[in-house]
Amino acid sequence: MRAATIRDGEVVVAEHPDPQPGHGEVLVAVRAAGLNGADMLQRRGLYPAPPGAPADIPGLELAGEVAAVGDAVTRWAPGDRVMAITGGGGQAELARVHERQLMPVPEGLDWDAAGGVPEVFTTAYDAVFTQGGLAAGERLLVHGAAGGVGTAAVQLGAAAGACVTATVRNPDLRDAVGALGAAAVLDPEGFADHGPFDVVLELVGAPNLPDDVKALETGGRIVVIGIGAGAKAELNLGALMGRRGRISASTLRARPLEEKAATARLMERHVLPLLERGALRVPVAETFALDDVAAAYERFAAGGKLGKIVLTMGR
Amino acid sequence: MRAATIRDGEVVVAEHPDPQPGHGEVLVAVRAAGLNGADMLQRRGLYPAPPGAPADIPGLELAGEVAAVGDAVTRWAPGDRVMAITGGGGQAELARVHERQLMPVPEGLDWDAAGGVPEVFTTAYDAVFTQGGLAAGERLLVHGAAGGVGTAAVQLGAAAGACVTATVRNPDLRDAVGALGAAAVLDPEGFADHGPFDVVLELVGAPNLPDDVKALETGGRIVVIGIGAGAKAELNLGALMGRRGRISASTLRARPLEEKAATARLMERHVLPLLERGALRVPVAETFALDDVAAAYERFAAGGKLGKIVLTMGR
Repeated sequence: MRAATIRDGEVVVAEHPDPQPGHGEVLVAVRAAGLNGADMLQRRGLYPAPPGAPADIPGLELAGEVAAVGDAVTRWAPGDRVMAITGGGGQAELARVHERQLMPVPEGLDWDAAGGVPEVFTTAYDAVFTQGGLAAGERLLVHGAAGGVGTAAVQLGAAAGACVTATVRNPDLRDAVGALGAAAVLDPEGFADHGPFDVVLELVGAPNLPDDVKALETGGRIVVIGIGAGAKAELNLGALMGRRGRISASTLRARPLEEKAATARLMERHVLPLLERGALRVPVAETFALDDVAAAYERFAAGGKLGKIVLTMGR
Repeated sequence: MRAATIRDGEVVVAEHPDPQPGHGEVLVAVRAAGLNGADMLQRRGLYPAPPGAPADIPGLELAGEVAAVGDAVTRWAPGDRVMAITGGGGQAELARVHERQLMPVPEGLDWDAAGGVPEVFTTAYDAVFTQGGLAAGERLLVHGAAGGVGTAAVQLGAAAGACVTATVRNPDLRDAVGALGAAAVLDPEGFADHGPFDVVLELVGAPNLPDDVKALETGGRIVVIGIGAGAKAELNLGALMGRRGRISASTLRARPLEEKAATARLMERHVLPLLERGALRVPVAETFALDDVAAAYERFAAGGKLGKIVLTMGR
């Protein structure tokens, strides 16, 4: 098979042996695979693939058709439309995925969109709901809302009855974020004046944390899953005590199979129905054929886009 | 009635009008009332009583007999042995308490011990279990374990099947903390080498936080409820993400009636049965009659004790 392949800090297309599905695994003929920030880090050698994933094939998410199933697979049959987050290896014509990590592709979702769903919607759902406990009537603040996870979080929060405030540094992207359901889209500067917030999704990093705490409602929750702007934060414990607040921090990629499978079940229950009935959109900024993978990575790294960059595999 | 009374930074005994129980309230003839750190702050004018509490009568906990009940009281009758946390006013011969905040005094618990139970055991239970989610088989680290809340947390953690590590600055108190069920009692210096811990109860403050994070198990929880050594902490968000960790911070006194009542119900269900069957001890360092309240405060402020300082009211 052919796959995006990391060679000396560049991403090229190379031939690899076809993977074989093991016990409980499904072989997926990939039709679309989104790019994510972690791929950029992996390309630069800063974020090695987890054990069991191909060391040189990036790709944390995929959508495609079941090509074959291994022993003891009960949920899927060849031809099923599936999608998943994976530990790596998604940007290839074929990928092995444990059947418990796979989700069905909702009716009406095309391949380009499906390839961009798993990573950002799973990450956003896990952060905002599983960790942050957001519920109807509450106020959600999303920092870095124009990114992939941000756009998913804004939509999920609004769909669940929360009032969503978004911060977006690039003024050109603010209207588009507003169109996703944010009640207010702000420049990050001075955001704390717009609180209090019950849940804060921190996708930017340490510089925001002191004001995140200041802007927290009593019993509020801050969830940190992005630290591109810095990791070392100042935290006033007295201020956090006064708000009876909570800070969670997490990553999805490092979790074991059973936890990733649990996030897939939550997606099936709480997010796929909303995609199926068109209550959520999957903004796709641009698609690239596998042969143009180098250009796809350059486009992602350039930023300034709203929506996913998706690789398509024409088989 | 007579009550401990704050006058110009001193605590004296003064006459006050007898309080009258209102709708849903119980008048308690106080037999014992523990001292707490918040009383020391209130004496110095640094921690004003919350709305509805007597402004000049300290005391966050009490045990005594029901002397009278107001309208609509259904849980209690005169003569019942009760105890409670209160917003203030506990260090008096009579105190008004909402019936939903009262708990029964377990059989076999004498007044001195009962007067020292509510604040520290409710605080420790709320922090370690309700917020920290400690469960059997996990490892609990308690900083400042020789204090009132610390001794309660060590015992509750051990009784619930956790392996408890305690830090105690004063070497003279370490054996006594070990006798309460801590598997290891350490000097605070270098504690992070003894992890990882699933739950960290932070009763000291900001200087410990960086090592609290370092010593955290994957999925671990830090609960901050004491910041005597400082509030401004450094927090490495990358380290917290790597451990998929959580930091909660809280205070009990500022919570509204319904939340305090909820903590009382959790005490009845999960802590009083352990007190009743002798699985928990209430270390009482010293008791003082109400007339000696000034000496009681001096004794508390001097520190170096293990166990509660309790005022006794002889009626």
